[in-house]
Order: sequence, then C-alpha cells, then structure tokens
Amino acid sequence: MQIVKGDDFVAGELLAGINSSDDLKKIELEKLPQVCNELRQYIIDLVSVKGGHFGASLGVIELTTALHYVFNTPYDQLVWDVGHQAYGHKILTGRRDLFHTNRKYKGISGFPKREESIYDTFGVGHSSTSISAALGMALASDYKNEKNKHHIAVIGDGALTAGLAFEGLNHAGSSHANLLVVLNDNCMSIDPNVGALKEYLTDITTSHTYNNVKDEVWKLLGKLSNFGTSARDIVSKVQLAMKTSLLKQSNMFESLKFRYFGPVDGHDVHRLVQVMQDLKDIPGPKILHVLTKKGKGYKFSEEGDETTWHAPGLFNKDTGEIIKVTPKEPQPPKYQDVFGHTLVELAEKNEKIMGITPAMPSGCSLNIMMKAMPHRAFDVGIAEQHAVTFSAGLATQGLVPFCNIYSSFMQRAYDQVIHDVALQKLHVVFCLDRGGLVGADGATHHGTFDIAYFRCIPNMIVAAPINEQELRNLMYTAQLEKNAGAFSIRYPRGNGVMPQWKTPFEEIKIGTGKKLKEGKDVAFLSFGTIGNNTARAIQQLEAQGIYAAHYDMRFAKPLDEELLHQVFSSYKKIITVEDGCLQGGFGSAIAEFMTDNQYTAHIKRLGIMDEFIEHGEPDELYEEVGLSINAIAQEAVKFLSVNTQTKIA
Amino acid sequence: MQIVKGDDFVAGELLAGINSSDDLKKIELEKLPQVCNELRQYIIDLVSVKGGHFGASLGVIELTTALHYVFNTPYDQLVWDVGHQAYGHKILTGRRDLFHTNRKYKGISGFPKREESIYDTFGVGHSSTSISAALGMALASDYKNEKNKHHIAVIGDGALTAGLAFEGLNHAGSSHANLLVVLNDNCMSIDPNVGALKEYLTDITTSHTYNNVKDEVWKLLGKLSNFGTSARDIVSKVQLAMKTSLLKQSNMFESLKFRYFGPVDGHDVHRLVQVMQDLKDIPGPKILHVLTKKGKGYKFSEEGDETTWHAPGLFNKDTGEIIKVTPKEPQPPKYQDVFGHTLVELAEKNEKIMGITPAMPSGCSLNIMMKAMPHRAFDVGIAEQHAVTFSAGLATQGLVPFCNIYSSFMQRAYDQVIHDVALQKLHVVFCLDRGGLVGADGATHHGTFDIAYFRCIPNMIVAAPINEQELRNLMYTAQLEKNAGAFSIRYPRGNGVMPQWKTPFEEIKIGTGKKLKEGKDVAFLSFGTIGNNTARAIQQLEAQGIYAAHYDMRFAKPLDEELLHQVFSSYKKIITVEDGCLQGGFGSAIAEFMTDNQYTAHIKRLGIMDEFIEHGEPDELYEEVGLSINAIAQEAVKFLSVNTQTKIA
Repeated sequence: MQIVKGDDFVAGELLAGINSSDDLKKIELEKLPQVCNELRQYIIDLVSVKGGHFGASLGVIELTTALHYVFNTPYDQLVWDVGHQAYGHKILTGRRDLFHTNRKYKGISGFPKREESIYDTFGVGHSSTSISAALGMALASDYKNEKNKHHIAVIGDGALTAGLAFEGLNHAGSSHANLLVVLNDNCMSIDPNVGALKEYLTDITTSHTYNNVKDEVWKLLGKLSNFGTSARDIVSKVQLAMKTSLLKQSNMFESLKFRYFGPVDGHDVHRLVQVMQDLKDIPGPKILHVLTKKGKGYKFSEEGDETTWHAPGLFNKDTGEIIKVTPKEPQPPKYQDVFGHTLVELAEKNEKIMGITPAMPSGCSLNIMMKAMPHRAFDVGIAEQHAVTFSAGLATQGLVPFCNIYSSFMQRAYDQVIHDVALQKLHVVFCLDRGGLVGADGATHHGTFDIAYFRCIPNMIVAAPINEQELRNLMYTAQLEKNAGAFSIRYPRGNGVMPQWKTPFEEIKIGTGKKLKEGKDVAFLSFGTIGNNTARAIQQLEAQGIYAAHYDMRFAKPLDEELLHQVFSSYKKIITVEDGCLQGGFGSAIAEFMTDNQYTAHIKRLGIMDEFIEHGEPDELYEEVGLSINAIAQEAVKFLSVNTQTKIA
Repeated sequence: MQIVKGDDFVAGELLAGINSSDDLKKIELEKLPQVCNELRQYIIDLVSVKGGHFGASLGVIELTTALHYVFNTPYDQLVWDVGHQAYGHKILTGRRDLFHTNRKYKGISGFPKREESIYDTFGVGHSSTSISAALGMALASDYKNEKNKHHIAVIGDGALTAGLAFEGLNHAGSSHANLLVVLNDNCMSIDPNVGALKEYLTDITTSHTYNNVKDEVWKLLGKLSNFGTSARDIVSKVQLAMKTSLLKQSNMFESLKFRYFGPVDGHDVHRLVQVMQDLKDIPGPKILHVLTKKGKGYKFSEEGDETTWHAPGLFNKDTGEIIKVTPKEPQPPKYQDVFGHTLVELAEKNEKIMGITPAMPSGCSLNIMMKAMPHRAFDVGIAEQHAVTFSAGLATQGLVPFCNIYSSFMQRAYDQVIHDVALQKLHVVFCLDRGGLVGADGATHHGTFDIAYFRCIPNMIVAAPINEQELRNLMYTAQLEKNAGAFSIRYPRGNGVMPQWKTPFEEIKIGTGKKLKEGKDVAFLSFGTIGNNTARAIQQLEAQGIYAAHYDMRFAKPLDEELLHQVFSSYKKIITVEDGCLQGGFGSAIAEFMTDNQYTAHIKRLGIMDEFIEHGEPDELYEEVGLSINAIAQEAVKFLSVNTQTKIA
C-alpha cells in the first residue's frame, strides 16, 4: 500500500530499489509484473495530484520495463518518439524522487532531454524524429565498430504517419544498421489516429493477415503433400515461390526492407522480454509491432475517453473524477474556442471556407467544426507539411482553407508555406495557435520564432490580435475575397480577456494598427496579446508619473507606416513589445522602418531573448523573459532613465 | 525534317498544329507515336542550343502525350511533381513558340507556374508536393460535387521518398478522392535514387513479384487440383485464403489503400492511352506504375550518364558532344568543389567528420567524398528532414556531420534544425549551398530567406565566407571541438574568385569580422560573397571621390560587436549589403545592434526586396535587385546625397 503525502510519494517495494536499469535487471523475471504495477501506481499517484501527461505513459509501462530489462541501457541507445510517454522511463532511470517536479518551473522536463540524463539519448517533444535519430546513432556505431550496440526507436502509430518517420524508414531499410523500431500501436496520438496507415495497422491486427493467413496456407499446403510424390514436388515449388518472392513483400514494412515481427501484446511483460531477447540476435533493421492501450491499467482512463485522459489535469485517483475549479464569475474563453466557434460562424456564411488540422482537433478546437460540418473539416494526421500543401491544393479550386497549426509545429511546414502558398499567392489562412510561451510543455513547444520566420516571406500577412474580438475580426478579414493570399493570424494558448467575446464582425484594413492610448514620455508599440500586459504596465507607469502612449500594431507585416510616421515624429523613445524572439521579429521590423526612413529615435525592444526557454507556468516564464507586467514597467523606467545622447562620433 | 535557325525552331507537321490539349485530341490514335517523335525532336533541337533540363522531359514524352490525350485538361487537374520534366507539357499546351525563352530572363519558367498557363495547375520546383496538392484539388471537387473531374499527380520514384509524398499518400488512401498517382519510375532523381523504396520498386519491376509470382503460384495450384476432389477443395481453400487476405496486402501501395496498376512501359504511348482510359472509370485513389528511362529517344543521353544529361548545358545534337568553353586562363573553382575537396581534406585529419546530402551529391559536390570515403558520406535521398535529424543522431555519438543542403531546400528541414540540432546544442555543420540568387531555376530555388530564418534560432552560428579561402577556413573552424554546436556556412552557386584557392587552413574566431579597407565618407558592412561586388563598387566610388570603408562581417550571428562599436563610433552613414531578404536578415541584425546600443547612425540596407524574384542569369537578377556592382555604387551615391538630418520632432 502506498501513501501519498505532499511531495513525498512512496514507491512500491520493488520500485523503491530501482534507480537505474542495472537495478531493474537484478529483479527476477517473474517479478516484473509487480514492477509494472508499482510503476503504474506511482504514475497514477503522482499525475493525479501534480498533473502532466497520463494515458501515453500508462500504455507503455510493460514496454518500458521490458526494454530496460532486456537492453543494456544506457550503452544501448533507446530513443523515445514525442516523449510524453517516457514517464516510466524517467522513473526507472534515476529520476523517481525528482519526478514530483515534472513539468514544473526549474523541475525536470516532461519530455526526454539529453541534459537531464544519460538515459535520454535524444531530446524530443515534436513527433516522428526517433527513427532518423536512432539510425544516425546506429550508423555511427557501425562506423565506430561498436557492433554489439543496440539502437531502439519507440514510435507510436500516430507519429509514424509523419513524413520524417517515412524518410527514416526508407533510409534505414536500405542500410544494415542494427536498428529496432518498436511500433507502439494504440490507434491514437492525442486524438484518434487517422489515415490509410492506421487502417492498414488495424488490418494487420484484426485479421492477423501476415502471420495467421501464412500459417493457414502453410497448413493447407501441408495437407496437399499427402497426395504423393509429384504433388509434394508441386507443393514445395508453390511454397518456394511464395516464400522467396511473395511473402517477403506481403508486409508494408518488409517492402521497406525491414524484418517485421508481431503484433504482440504490449501489456504482457514476459512475452515482450522474450521477443526482445530474440530480436537482439537478429541483425539489420527490424520492426516490432506492439499493441498497447493508452491509459492501460487504470479503470477510469481505460474505460473513459482517451483524448480526455491524454493529459487530464488533476483528478481524484479513487473516483476518476477530473477536478475542475468552477470560477465564481464568467471567465474569458480560450482563444482556441474562439477560433473554433468563429470558424463555424464564418463558414456558415462563406461556403468556401474549409478547416484543416494536422492531428490537433481537440487542441486547437477544430473539433467544433469537425462536429458541425464534418465534410468541410479535415484532420490529416501528424503531417504538417501535407496540411499546408493540401490546403494550397484546396485553394487552387477557389476554396478558402483555414489551416490551423501550432506555431512550433509550423516549423515543420515552412517550405510548404513559402513554396506552395506564398509564392503562388494562394488564399490560405494560417491560424498559428500556441504563439508565445506555452508553459509546461517547454522548449520544444514554445511558439517563439514564427514572427521572424513568417515576416521574411514575401506576400505573407503577419497579424496578431490583442484579444478575442480582434481575433474574430482578423479571421473575418482574412476570409474576404479582397484579401486573398497568404494570411497568418497568431494567438496564444489559453484564456483571453473578454468574457463577452461574441462581438459582431468588423473588417480590419490590412496593415493598420490602432492607437489605444495617448502619451507623452514614451510610446509602446505592441504586437498581439502581450499588448494586455503592456497596457497594465502602462497603468503602473502612470502611477509613477510616467505617461506612455500605446499602439496596438496588429500587423507585423505589412506595417502601418502612416501610424509609424506619426509615432516616430512624436516620440524620441519607443518601446516595442512582442512575445516572440528578438532576432528578426516585430521589434526588428520597427527598427528596419526607422532606419529605412532615417528616423533616429531610441528603440528598446522587449521580447524573448536569444535562448531556448524552458518549461514552467506561463506567468513564471513571462517573468523570466521580462514580459510580465512588472518587468515591462521596470524596463521602461530603466530605458527612460538612461542617457540616450546620440553617440555619433 | 526540321530546320533550326536562330530562335525560329520549326516543329514537325503534327506538333505544329497542336496548341492545346483539344488540338492533340483531334489527332488519330495511331499517329500519336509521330507526335511523340516530333515533340522529342523539338526538345532536342531547343535544349541543345538554349540549355535547360533535358533527360527528365525526354523520359516522359509518351506519358505527357497520353495524359493530355486521355484526360480533359485543363478541366481535369494535372499536377507535375518537381516540374523540370514538364517541357513536353508546356510545348503541347500553347507555349511552343515561347519555348525558346525557357528559363531566360523575362521568359517562361523552367517549371510549371500557375501565372503562366491554366494548364499549370500547381507551381513547382521543389519535389514531392504533387500528391498533397492533387488531393486538395480532388477533395475540393468532391465538395463542389464535380464528380466527373479527374486529378492526376505525376511523381518520380525519387520524389516519392520525401516525407511529404508519404503524408499525402496516407491521407489520400483513407479518402475516396478521385486521385490518380502516376509513378514515373526511372530509378533516378538528379542522381541515382537511393533507399529501400527504390529497392522495392526495382523488386516489383524486375521480378514482377506482384503479378508474375501470383500467376506462377496460381498455375502450380491449378496443377494440384488434378489430384482429385479433396485436393481440389484444399486448393480452393488455399487460393481463397491467399486471395482474400494475403494478396490484397502484398503491394505496399495497396497497404496504403491505393489500387495499384502496373508496371507498364512508359514509352509505349498506345498502351499508356489504353490503361489510362481504363483507369478513368475506376473511382478512388489509384496508382499507375510507369517505367521510363531518363533521356529516352536520344542516342547520346540514352547511352550516356543520366546525371550528366539531367541538365547538360549546350550540346551538339548531332554528335552528342557537350559544349565546354575552355577558358584561356585558370578560372576560380566552383564553391561546390571547394566544399567537396575541403571536406575530404578535413575528414582525412579528423576521423569524426561525416558528410550528408539529401539527393544532391553531384550538385553540391559531396560526390567527391562519397568516392574518396564511401563509408563516411551518405546520400539519404530526397529527404531533407531526415538528413538533418539523421545528422543529429550521428552527432549524439560524438561524430561531426557536415550536412549540405541547398538554402531553399533547407526550408524543408527547418523544424529539425531547431528542434533536433540547435535546441540540443549538437555539433552539426550546415553547409548552405545555393545561398542568394541561383539564376535560371528561379523563384522556387533562390536561397534568399536563410539568413533571416537561421538568425532567429538560438545557439546557431550564421556565417558566410567572402571567398574560397574563407569558406575553407570557416569549414576548418566549424569542425573544431571548441566550436561544437549548430554552425551554418552559407555560400552561393557557381564560381568563386580565387584561381589559387587551396590555401592553408586558419582558424577564424567565432563572431569576428574583418576590416578590408579604411574609409571616410561611409562604411560598407557586407556579409558573404556579395562582398566582392561591394569591393568593386567601392573602387567605382573612389573614382568619383567617395571614400568608403569596407568591413567583411563574416558572421551575421554572433555579430562582431567590438568591430561594430568601432564602425558606429566612426561613421554616420552605414550601408549593409547581403544577397538575402531585407526582412530580418543581416542588415536587420545591424539595425538591431544600433538600436540596442543607442547609436543613431543612418543605415541603408541593401539586399533582396520583399518579393519572389523570377529566373534569369545571375547578373541580370543581381542588377534587378540592386546588388550589381553598378547598382551598389549608385545606391551609395544616392544615400550619401540625401539629407539625413535627424527627424526627431
């Protein structure tokens, strides 16, 4: 029996003694199910009160245990794809007592991370990198003549749909790398997996095509061989023909020159150990197809909705009740839901509008449209590149796709945005969700680069609303025929600022900002929702007798040049504020405007410094990067106190 | 017989009458081979004296003719992948008489381009977009209830290895889209195709696995049924088991829920017409596997090396002799060859160095290392994403991969650079070939965004050499243990400036520029090889009595702040020069430095304006964007003559 008190989570008796894969290996084979039970319970205890990803890690408890039991980790290289399923891996490899700090500010990461442990061979967060990374490791070992080293990529069926995974398979299959790809097949990524590959895996699994039919045919042919010598001859010829040519092609992975094994029950730890031990002796690229269930071993997640239990927040582990704090007053909505409802509203009026998401329907709230208009909303799977080029294809036929991709995942589709949309001036609206610092998911997920990487693309409109109303108005504006072209709208994760958000649509003129407040001492130019912190910082400054103007620029591109001429003609000191990287971002656009127009004001650029920012609560992170209300006010005071005499020699 | 005189290319008698697919359809079926011959001859006549891509278009003459003969183009949507094989398509669809302007400044594009013709349904240049784009078109038609509309993607076996193509297949296979994917299988992209998929296609083709073995087994089983009733029963059970479960899985494309047809001879135009006519009546996603030969139908390209004949330059069409102008004096080498030879030189001394290219070994000259050190150089196929993550995997094992990717193709691997390399501070050297304007390949291939899109990535070093010696020194510097991390080196397509390029290696301190020349009136800060035009512009200015300083900054990130403090303390007027986009690029970095350090100099930023630049000779294009020697000098004169009084109100 385990006791939970504060951060003092008590592990079961076997788990308590495991601080490395060596410790795990000392445990007798028959006791592994107990290790799995204890590991599962530890995760339930912890996540129920500390939060974090849940279903994915529960689904791979036996797999994790078997992998560390069989393979010589950390010498053997174990690569987790995506990584939110690696809680068991972390707990077994020396991070059990730190695990209550998971995803907390300054705590351990919710994903594998090289700096954190030698067991974390490759940092992840985005999906589908594991095969390529493990292949690199395997061919490095080959080159270094480390022939006894194993390299294992554990990838989900959802992650396998991304092009990068296929590129890795294609290269690996033609190599002799000692590579084991473990396909963790649970028919889910965060939302249910989609696409032909998923159907294929279901076929393999349900019909047991590959093994059972092969067995059946072999058995029947065996019976035929009783018909005498000449029949036996023919049978053996049939078998040979099938064996040498047909059957080796009969599995998709074998088409790609992988040896395929499975499917095996991913919750039978003994079976997994046995199969993996066998596989250690088989050289070359091979795939082990393991069937698992997300949320396995906890009644409520097993029976409940898998998307809900992906990262349920806090819950009562005894009742399965997910803890929801009901606010006393109506709260502002999530930007995601404003996007989702507004898109449906617009699509009802404009039949050209379509919705596209790469595997994030619940995360970005496109599920609202998928439910309301299933024939007009597409979840294309984890496939950001395809999402964009597919949208471009729709646009060539006169439709207006709203392609919703998280800012950090849009990095995956950068070429498609440039080459397939912007260059061709196709009418695609990019809704960049998760712009800015996302919080607990950390460095891999922060949306910090998009302003810079979109601003340099010709024909691209780069817009960001300050609130829900502006998000709605930008979405309305973006779908208008007159604004046909590449149009990006960026907004953050989480709640807005307007409890009454359902405002009537108003067109916004492209490239126009808005003066929110007159001032005297300094002008703030903000871009996007960070404008709200800016506004409150300005209030603080007023209390100190500093009067700042505030302009919500709305567009980082095209800039509102008329407004900027007013600003630069009126203010000597200008502060730009954005929740994106400082290199090449919104503030740089303002500096470019200044130099191009030969103004010589002093600009202070506030934004995210040139570092990868770690995880934590958004408030903690915005404080760290100097974009909290206090930090903005303090920076302004400092900036105004500095003597900014012209330094020209 | 055809006569060639100047730009007055004479088409054969049938071809001369074809200005649309409707014209083509009027020709009798039995005369199609003649159309093909005339089309082939027209391309040979033209490309031999005008240049351009060659082998790919010759390989698809029959395919092109059959497609426009059978399908109702341009109503039916025909999407060419990559597009350098679309010459026949262009000539048949109204652009014959313009075709001598192919790839010339202000002439027609070497790739399909929507602005150019209604027959060009989707602009291309980069590979592997066709399936996604055509699927978008198909699902748009489905939504619009245009049930009789066909959508055809023509994709090469090389392009099929890119992840984007797989993502498209995966989505298409689970849809009911009326989509025909024509797999143009020639075992080549520009260099010979690599990877497991290629081996699989070869298997299908050479062993005729799918059809022939099936036939053989069926035949043998038939013989068994002679052994009496009970044997016949067993045989029919075997057949049923195989048919219903096994064989439907036995083709990789059928695993992805495509109906597979082929392989068929891609040079038999009648057979192609017949098969395509049949396929028109088959609904849903289907794949037609067509075998073609690059350079088909022209003796010398058929017998010669396919990579050479991909884009041979000018040649004598009668003798097949490729025309090489031998310069009187030793010429500077191509930067590509400096890269290739230098990499081998460095790798001989540093056993950690590996070379990686995604399908461009001859283009980037990694083939030099592939020949010298085959076990240390990898061509991973058209798979930029994988090339980078694979490199990251190698780096985790202590190796130092030099990953060479063209600037515009690096857009495909942007997330991998951020997420897999920079975030993890892995030691990967990115050699960005084709930085700047590439010339005749045009808008899709210009490397104009990389300075901006790399500069915003934390931990990334952004360097560019001014000449061969500096390229060598940067490569030397990048591989040093002390500089482990993400390191990018950018250089252009084409020849350098140093006939004696093989200089001894010298380490360059990271983030240091170099004063090339003292000055008085203005300071030029240049980045990369455009510094050579800058230097000559400065000479021109001196003839006019204007004395300009010149700083070769070498690093756009980190900046040489010490040097910049000197510059900003000494000059009121500063001109930045880069052959990259102005938004967020090197000039922006200098403007950022100025504002961050509260200098108030006047900066003129020269670079590529915020537009997609079309094709032409590099000289023509550099003139157009204002980066020729003359243009730089003129801009400087203009800048110096403007009154740049401080405009502060």
